[in-house]
Amino acid sequence: MSAISAYAAKSAKGKLELHTIERRDTGDNDVQIAIQFCGVCHSDLHAVANDWGNSSYPVVPGHEIIGEVTAVGKNVKKFKIGDSVGVGCMVDSCQTCEACKEDLEQHCLSGPIMTYNSKTSDAGGRTYGGYSKQVVVREEFVLRIPDNLDKAAAAPLLCAGITTFSPLHQYGIKKGMTVGVIGLGGLGHMGIKLASAMGARTVMITTSTNKAEDAKKLGADDVLISTDKDAMKKWQGKFDFLLNTIPVGHDVNPYMGLLKYNKTMCFVGAIEPLEAVNGAPMIFGRKALAGSLIGGIKETQEMLDFCGEHNVVSEIETIKMEEINNAFVRMKDNDVRYRFVIDMSSL
Amino acid sequence: MSAISAYAAKSAKGKLELHTIERRDTGDNDVQIAIQFCGVCHSDLHAVANDWGNSSYPVVPGHEIIGEVTAVGKNVKKFKIGDSVGVGCMVDSCQTCEACKEDLEQHCLSGPIMTYNSKTSDAGGRTYGGYSKQVVVREEFVLRIPDNLDKAAAAPLLCAGITTFSPLHQYGIKKGMTVGVIGLGGLGHMGIKLASAMGARTVMITTSTNKAEDAKKLGADDVLISTDKDAMKKWQGKFDFLLNTIPVGHDVNPYMGLLKYNKTMCFVGAIEPLEAVNGAPMIFGRKALAGSLIGGIKETQEMLDFCGEHNVVSEIETIKMEEINNAFVRMKDNDVRYRFVIDMSSL
Repeated sequence: MSAISAYAAKSAKGKLELHTIERRDTGDNDVQIAIQFCGVCHSDLHAVANDWGNSSYPVVPGHEIIGEVTAVGKNVKKFKIGDSVGVGCMVDSCQTCEACKEDLEQHCLSGPIMTYNSKTSDAGGRTYGGYSKQVVVREEFVLRIPDNLDKAAAAPLLCAGITTFSPLHQYGIKKGMTVGVIGLGGLGHMGIKLASAMGARTVMITTSTNKAEDAKKLGADDVLISTDKDAMKKWQGKFDFLLNTIPVGHDVNPYMGLLKYNKTMCFVGAIEPLEAVNGAPMIFGRKALAGSLIGGIKETQEMLDFCGEHNVVSEIETIKMEEINNAFVRMKDNDVRYRFVIDMSSL
Repeated sequence: MSAISAYAAKSAKGKLELHTIERRDTGDNDVQIAIQFCGVCHSDLHAVANDWGNSSYPVVPGHEIIGEVTAVGKNVKKFKIGDSVGVGCMVDSCQTCEACKEDLEQHCLSGPIMTYNSKTSDAGGRTYGGYSKQVVVREEFVLRIPDNLDKAAAAPLLCAGITTFSPLHQYGIKKGMTVGVIGLGGLGHMGIKLASAMGARTVMITTSTNKAEDAKKLGADDVLISTDKDAMKKWQGKFDFLLNTIPVGHDVNPYMGLLKYNKTMCFVGAIEPLEAVNGAPMIFGRKALAGSLIGGIKETQEMLDFCGEHNVVSEIETIKMEEINNAFVRMKDNDVRYRFVIDMSSL
């Protein structure tokens, strides 16, 4: 065990403060990482405030981790000291179940071990996240970061990036297709960049006319204002795929009408109930509504390699560790374009 | 034009009576069919009563047609006089759009021409269905009926059969999978038979304990009573696919919980709004909710050939043409196991 400086919440009051956390020793299969940058995800806020009722304090948030390898266990083969690496939302899984064997560790039948606020396999153990100087992670859950990517701007790829890449990848998005990305926030802006890099005609679908210019800068070929009835009518039946990043419950029916026959809208943000869904257009158009959760480790590495090849990173605002509580307030107010990333040298 | 005896509704009062209908002459690309049997589908009832607001009287219902070829146009290559043939829900489509080229004529971008109550490409023309002595259909929409199948019992394959076969086929159902069929009616009973013939472990999911025995006779390996909370819990996460045949709006959430991660529930009956759908389990389990509509012509022939090979037909009660109004009443009351078929020699 070694004592590490970390920003932790001690209660649901939502404030993060400097604390000392014990990190486990670097085991034979582990990689020890000095954290350089950590992205700030909306779920960090929920965990700190115990919005989902599963927080066990202290909570050290952060699952968009970029760092450098500082030590490796004797069995570690893929990494060496000095490598640029990343850690996303998961740090372990059973590795033996059907889901793990299909490279879908996020659906591990024993439950994946998440990067923070999760029980470990050791009795009483908890995971602590990336708002911290160091993290120790099993080799299989450590990712290689392409050298050409800006390290700070690459951090959000580990959650926002894979969350949007995975559905685009699952549904085979490529040149010749028209993809709509619904909602322009941390997830949506990655969706635009990734769908565009995959060669699709990419349309930003948003309620906010003031986001149109930004969307085009991010790579959107078109912008569809979803409150404009004529525009919505014009785009009926035109989309090969819709990536819905709206983070709250909403009416999906107007969006389903935008899909071509036999196509899917995948949602990655709305963990609240969706309003009543009209069955008829889904039957008559053979349409589907699907959920998707981050991505497996193999797919996350594919995403990072894809981003390296296409030079895709997140749009970020870098902050110091001590600015985190203010960043949380601004994130709540949607006052970030599009992701805060903590420069851990400030800790 | 030739005058044909048919049972038609003249108004939304819902009564069918004997009328004389003009059938078009057999064109160069047409097949003329003497109708032997016609299945009675729930949508016949809706069309007769104008429940969907699109009925144009007179309506001759019937889209589960079995008959014998009595004449062919000079360009017809696939059929000859005396052949056993069938006609399902569609009789024409543009044949040139993206959907038609993908063998998904039911999603023809110009709109498929349905077997009855549909405008034809001739000005003022309407289609008339199978409650009739004869039908004339373009060759491409005529299907070959395997010789070994009972002709009356094969009639419902043309709608109930393909409606359930298509999703099972799309989702690659095979041995080693566990498939749940929700709802035991005209569609559900075909779902059980087909999923079972495909080699899947097939589970009937129903609210009615009194349907359990019947379901097992039809080929279900197990029966899950959806009102039994303990049973529902036991089956959580166990299904590779769910075929939902419930014909009305309902709460899909308890069923979604029965799916394994990364699997789909496909609904084929509920054209009414589905109640609010919980997003969280769909995201966390990467699950999908999809609609499906009958099937294309190529797939319908595949279904018929599959049924020939596995000797699958519908469970039917044969009626005389004059009994149709009473059959409609019984169908409304769910008093049929599982499909009425009209013996057209009674007309």
